Amino acid sequence: MNQIHPSAYVSSNATLGEGVEIGPFCVVHDNVVLADRVSVGAYCELGVTGPNSASSNQLLSIGADSLIRSHSIFYAGSSFGESLTTGHRVTVREGTKAGKGFQIGTSTEIQGDCTVGDYVRFQSNIFVGKSTEIGNYVWVLPYVILTNDPTPPSNVLIGCIIEDYATLCAGSIILPGIVVGTHAVVAAGACVTKNVEARVVVAGNPARTRGEAKDIMLRDGSARAAYPWTRHFSRGYPDTVVANWEKSKGE
Amino acid sequence: MNQIHPSAYVSSNATLGEGVEIGPFCVVHDNVVLADRVSVGAYCELGVTGPNSASSNQLLSIGADSLIRSHSIFYAGSSFGESLTTGHRVTVREGTKAGKGFQIGTSTEIQGDCTVGDYVRFQSNIFVGKSTEIGNYVWVLPYVILTNDPTPPSNVLIGCIIEDYATLCAGSIILPGIVVGTHAVVAAGACVTKNVEARVVVAGNPARTRGEAKDIMLRDGSARAAYPWTRHFSRGYPDTVVANWEKSKGE
Amino acid sequence: MNQIHPSAYVSSNATLGEGVEIGPFCVVHDNVVLADRVSVGAYCELGVTGPNSASSNQLLSIGADSLIRSHSIFYAGSSFGESLTTGHRVTVREGTKAGKGFQIGTSTEIQGDCTVGDYVRFQSNIFVGKSTEIGNYVWVLPYVILTNDPTPPSNVLIGCIIEDYATLCAGSIILPGIVVGTHAVVAAGACVTKNVEARVVVAGNPARTRGEAKDIMLRDGSARAAYPWTRHFSRGYPDTVVANWEKSKGE
Repeated sequence: MNQIHPSAYVSSNATLGEGVEIGPFCVVHDNVVLADRVSVGAYCELGVTGPNSASSNQLLSIGADSLIRSHSIFYAGSSFGESLTTGHRVTVREGTKAGKGFQIGTSTEIQGDCTVGDYVRFQSNIFVGKSTEIGNYVWVLPYVILTNDPTPPSNVLIGCIIEDYATLCAGSIILPGIVVGTHAVVAAGACVTKNVEARVVVAGNPARTRGEAKDIMLRDGSARAAYPWTRHFSRGYPDTVVANWEKSKGE
Repeated sequence: MNQIHPSAYVSSNATLGEGVEIGPFCVVHDNVVLADRVSVGAYCELGVTGPNSASSNQLLSIGADSLIRSHSIFYAGSSFGESLTTGHRVTVREGTKAGKGFQIGTSTEIQGDCTVGDYVRFQSNIFVGKSTEIGNYVWVLPYVILTNDPTPPSNVLIGCIIEDYATLCAGSIILPGIVVGTHAVVAAGACVTKNVEARVVVAGNPARTRGEAKDIMLRDGSARAAYPWTRHFSRGYPDTVVANWEKSKGE
Repeated sequence: MNQIHPSAYVSSNATLGEGVEIGPFCVVHDNVVLADRVSVGAYCELGVTGPNSASSNQLLSIGADSLIRSHSIFYAGSSFGESLTTGHRVTVREGTKAGKGFQIGTSTEIQGDCTVGDYVRFQSNIFVGKSTEIGNYVWVLPYVILTNDPTPPSNVLIGCIIEDYATLCAGSIILPGIVVGTHAVVAAGACVTKNVEARVVVAGNPARTRGEAKDIMLRDGSARAAYPWTRHFSRGYPDTVVANWEKSKGE
C-alpha cells in the first residue's frame, strides 16, 4: 500500500509500484514511473518538462528500493536502476541513464545526456556537464566539476569519460573531453588538463602525474596500500560485488 | 488570463500582467511586479524581505516573457529586464539591477547591489558577491566565485568588474576589485589576483597571462579562432544582436 | 503567542517557546525544540531522521532569537546556541553541537558530528565534512571545502581543526586532519595540505606560507594592519565580546 502525503500532487498518469511513499508538498508529473518501495522526501518535483526540454513525452523511471531526499528535482527522460539514493536538492536533467546503486549527494547537479554505470557514488555539490560518461564503482567527492565545452561559449560539446573505480577528490576540475583511467586518483583541488592514465595519481593546477596510486598508504597505521581501494573498502556494496572484487583481487 | 496554482499564496498587493503563471506552493509577497507572460515554477518565494534587508518598501520587478524555475528566491528591491531565464534554486538578494535576456543557472547566488548588463549568461552554482559589476554579453561558467572583501573580515567592499564579452571559465576565483577586460578569457580553475587585460587569456593559481584569446582554436576541426566568440556563436541571441555583431565583426 | 502558517505541518510532539514563527509549507517533526522567538522561513524541514540516521530519538534544539531562512533542512540530533542565523537552503546533519551567534550562509552543508564554537560565521556554499572542529570567532568564506577522508574511499575519517579567529578565504580546500592555527589566514583558492601555524598567511596550490598575517594592510587607505581583524572589525558582535577584544588587544 502506498503512502501519499495529502499535500502532494501526484498525476493520475504516473505509474506507482507497491510500497511507494511520497512526502509533503511533492509534485509528481505525468510519465513518471516509480518502482516498488521508492521513497520520495518533501518538496520534490519529479518528471519536470519545460520550454528547453525535449523530453516531454519521455518517461522518468526510478528503480525499486530507491530513496530520493527532499527538495530534489528530476526531469522527464532519464532512468535509474534499483537502489538509487540521493541527498537533498539533487537536480537531474533529461536524458541520463544510470545503473544500480547510484548514490548522489546533496546539491549535486547532473545536466543531462549522461551515462552512469553501477554502484557509482557522487558526494555533495558536484557538477556533471552534459554528455559525461561515468563507468562503474566510480567515486566523486564534493565540489568536483566535470566540464564539456573546451572554448566557452561554443557549439562543441565533449563530455569527460571517467573509467571504472576512479576517484575524483574534492574540488577537482576536469576539463572537457578528459579521460580519467581506471583506478586513477585525481587529488583534491587538481585542475586536470590532460588525460589521466590508469592507476596513477595526479595533483596540482595544472595537474601533473605524481606517481602510482598503489604507493599511497592508508592513514590508519595498518601499512596497507590505499589503492586499489577495493582491497580494503566494501561499506554499502552488495556481497556479490565484494566477492567478485576479492576473486579478482579488486582490480 | 493568469494561472495561479491553488496551493500558491499570492499577495493581493502584488501586480501581475497578462498570461502570468504561478506554480504549486509558491509565495509571492507584496511589492512584486510580474510583467506579461512571466512563468514561475514550484516552491519559489518572490519579494522576500527580512531583518537584514533594507528593501521592505521596494519593488521586485520581473520583465515580460521571463521564466523563473522552481525553488528560486528573489528579494524585494531588484529589477530584471525582459526574458529573464533562471535555473532552479536561484537566490537573488536586494538591490540588483539587470538588463534584458539575463540567464541565471541552477543554484547561482547573487548577493545584492550588483549591476548586470544585457544578455549575460550565468551557468550553475556561481557566487556573485555584493557590488559586482557585470557588462553585456558576459559568460560565467559553473562554480565561479566573484569576491569583494580583500582582507576578510573587514568593512572594505570592492566589487569585481567584468567587462563586455568576457568569459570566466568553470571554478575560477576572481579576487576583490579585479577588472576583467573585454573579450578576455579566464581559464578553468584560475585564481585571478591581478587585473586581466582585454582579449588575453589567464590561467593558473595565481593566474598569469598565457597569450591572446584569438590564438585559441575552436575544437571542431574548422581551423577557426575560438575568440572573439561572437564570430561563431549566436545560439539564443536575438537576430538584431547577432546582426550588430556581424556588422562590427563581433568586437 | 506563536505564528504557525496554516500550510505548515508541526508535530504535536515538538516543543515551541514563546513568539515562535513557522513559515508556509514547513514540516517540523517530533523531537524538535525551538526556544523563544525562533523564526523559521518557508519550505524548511526540521528534525529530519532517516534510514542512514542514528538520531531518530534525539532532539534538534535551536536556541532563542534564531532565524532559519527558507528551504533549510536540519536533522534531529544537533543543538545550536542562541542567535543562530542561517541563509537559505542550509543543510545540517545529525550530531553537530554549535555555540552562540552562529551564522550559516546560503547553501552551506554541515555533514554532522561537528563542533562549532561561539560567534562563528560561515558564508555561502561551504562544505563541512563530518567530525570537523571549529573554534570561536572563526570566519569561513564562500565555497570553502573542509574534507575528512585522506584516501577516499576509506574508513579513516580525520576531521579538520580550525582554531579561534582563523579566516578561511573563498574557494580554499582544507585537506583531512589539517590544523589551521589561531588568527591564521588561508588565502582564496589555497589547497592546504600541511598544518597552518598561528598568525601566518598561506596561499597557492599546494598552499605555502607567504608571511605573517599582521603584515597585510587594510585596503581602506588607513595604513592599519588587516589582522588580527578583531582590532578593526566588530560588526554584529555583542558589546561584551568586543570589550573583551579591546582589553586583550584583540588577540
